[in-house]
Amino acid sequence: MSSTKLFNKIALIGIGLIGSSIAHAVRKNGLAASVSVGDIRQDHCDKALELGCCDQAGTNLALAVKDADLVVLCVPIGANAEVAEKIAAHLKPGAIVSDVGSVKQAVVRDVGPLLPEGVHLVPGHPIAGTEFSGPEAGFAELFQGRWCILTPPSGTDEEATAKVAALWRGMGSMIEIMDPSHHDMVLAITSHLPHLIAYTIVGTASNLEESLKGEVIRYSASGFRDFTRIAASDPIMWRDVFLNNRDAVLEMLQRFSEDLTALQRAIRWGEGQALEDLFTRTRAIRRGIIEAKQDS
Amino acid sequence: MSSTKLFNKIALIGIGLIGSSIAHAVRKNGLAASVSVGDIRQDHCDKALELGCCDQAGTNLALAVKDADLVVLCVPIGANAEVAEKIAAHLKPGAIVSDVGSVKQAVVRDVGPLLPEGVHLVPGHPIAGTEFSGPEAGFAELFQGRWCILTPPSGTDEEATAKVAALWRGMGSMIEIMDPSHHDMVLAITSHLPHLIAYTIVGTASNLEESLKGEVIRYSASGFRDFTRIAASDPIMWRDVFLNNRDAVLEMLQRFSEDLTALQRAIRWGEGQALEDLFTRTRAIRRGIIEAKQDS
Repeated sequence: MSSTKLFNKIALIGIGLIGSSIAHAVRKNGLAASVSVGDIRQDHCDKALELGCCDQAGTNLALAVKDADLVVLCVPIGANAEVAEKIAAHLKPGAIVSDVGSVKQAVVRDVGPLLPEGVHLVPGHPIAGTEFSGPEAGFAELFQGRWCILTPPSGTDEEATAKVAALWRGMGSMIEIMDPSHHDMVLAITSHLPHLIAYTIVGTASNLEESLKGEVIRYSASGFRDFTRIAASDPIMWRDVFLNNRDAVLEMLQRFSEDLTALQRAIRWGEGQALEDLFTRTRAIRRGIIEAKQDS
Repeated sequence: MSSTKLFNKIALIGIGLIGSSIAHAVRKNGLAASVSVGDIRQDHCDKALELGCCDQAGTNLALAVKDADLVVLCVPIGANAEVAEKIAAHLKPGAIVSDVGSVKQAVVRDVGPLLPEGVHLVPGHPIAGTEFSGPEAGFAELFQGRWCILTPPSGTDEEATAKVAALWRGMGSMIEIMDPSHHDMVLAITSHLPHLIAYTIVGTASNLEESLKGEVIRYSASGFRDFTRIAASDPIMWRDVFLNNRDAVLEMLQRFSEDLTALQRAIRWGEGQALEDLFTRTRAIRRGIIEAKQDS
């Protein structure tokens, strides 16, 4: 092992947008001596090798994790348990297992109990992504300047957490440590609800009379377009997010529905002042985001 | 009058984002011999003169429209009637009055009856904008490659419509002629409902417990951010949109709410296939927008 590398071998299970971006970033920043990829799709493995972002790739997940110091699960949340079952017996003693999913209580619940004694679970969630999917969508700079939230369950080995944090810092991210349940509530409002709303409105538009549908696309620059970008995100990944963060999403959705109903009532009854007050208040939030430099 | 100019004098009433962008674009493309500005805010008039995008600017609207061949109302929709009352008696015979509002039946209803015989009303709506407001937010390229919808009421002088169309083409826009009520239905789904939803979700977030609010801003890159940009649009302008396109907005909002309730139910009962089906369908709409080159 090179003394300058953070890890000797990193295994990435799942080589979609996030997995391949990690592969590129690890390579570019010299964070591991070798990167192996396990993905149940042979075409994904072939593409990963062709892209040159890993040293080895194959559909045998047990082989992929062999001798790895760090295994990062980059699959839809619903696939974590199945992957954990396949790899658990083949993990190196002392290995760290992490993930990149958008729900964190679920991975603690699904993966935690399956790992052998001495293997450390340090769940992670990079707040980064694009509307594109698959190995060719990845790029080394995806995590640059973005937050990565780590949610080690209480009692997790601190050195293991520190090593995962160092990996993300090495890829350009800023680190925050958070309780898994708190993470799931924060993301329900910042990410899951916005995606749900975007999927819904794009679905509503796609149900329109045919005569209107073409015009929706033509005049989409007036607001609708921003929603379509969000609603083009990976369907399987997002199905699993909603199924696995149900309570927090339903809670935020309920608050949203109440607020929307109040606004609907204000429109129906012509209450201009109520509308103006809300629209003025929401501008302040935007300013906060610009000041926090999270606006692009 | 220079023979190469489309108009001798254009008057812009209201010199916010859209008004000042027209002023810049008219200048840059040599579409009028002179541009005058009327705005009830003296500071806006001063800024317009300072920016050098007009020949004359002042708070006296009657003076601004004197001898103008074309008057474009660039004020919030709710202010149209008041402006029309102030300028009607001072319009040049044969002048054209247009506007840039996001609701088109309202301007026909509010402004049409106030105009003297021989003055032509050609309502317009450029599908372009940014989250910024005020005269300094304008720029000449705002309309480049964007649609401008004209909604002349039946019986409108065709030459007047053609001249307004030529102005917008001269500023780089593509023209579509549409019935005012059809316009208002199309924009209700492509623009008004998306803004309403964005305002609501940003409002819901701003009502969160203080401990969560800071984190919403910090982790906004995960989806929420795109909504805040939309929800930072001009409050008065948008108040007037909702008050003046009530029926179409409530109709689209009702459809959206039904779809959202169905999705909420699917999440509650763990119906993964229903979620996946919708999320797959919405991707197709995004592809349509990219193919129509309206994706940026």
